[in-house]
Amino acid sequence: MGRVVVEVMPKPEILDPQGKAVVGALPRLGFTQFSGVRQGKRFELEVEGEVTAEVLAAAQEAAVTLLSNPVIEDVVRVADAATDAAGTITAEGVA
Amino acid sequence: MGRVVVEVMPKPEILDPQGKAVVGALPRLGFTQFSGVRQGKRFELEVEGEVTAEVLAAAQEAAVTLLSNPVIEDVVRVADAATDAAGTITAEGVA
Repeated sequence: MGRVVVEVMPKPEILDPQGKAVVGALPRLGFTQFSGVRQGKRFELEVEGEVTAEVLAAAQEAAVTLLSNPVIEDVVRVADAATDAAGTITAEGVA
Repeated sequence: MGRVVVEVMPKPEILDPQGKAVVGALPRLGFTQFSGVRQGKRFELEVEGEVTAEVLAAAQEAAVTLLSNPVIEDVVRVADAATDAAGTITAEGVA
């Protein structure tokens, strides 16, 4: 069974109060490395078979028509979830 | 300026009403490929310099302590945003 990841972020010119709340809280917890935070959405779409180019194209269309509001949001990523492993760090370290 | 992506998903055993709403709406719009949808969060943390291993480790710690609720959510990905390009499809096609 395959899985497609669709990611949506608020457009840069859109206010993001959730991101602002996080960026205010980070230094209070000792995280001083981060100068800005934006919060968006991650969707995981399951498919019965493999993640083919057709499935990715359908996910891209769904991302634009249903999963995002194009007035205030950008679709920043549509990808096979299998590609997520690259560069991901877990509790055990960098994969 | 670098950017770290932190992604958080509801744990598999947690009900996800937003995902359920999306999976109900997809076939009505003609998307019959998808059998399940889960909705989570994507955070983009900006750093002034480069995304070093220390920055990723701090982001991982922030992900667990502030950006997710470990009772109901899993941190599924902490990565340099630069790695997002791989496998991403845009309006122009697969990158």
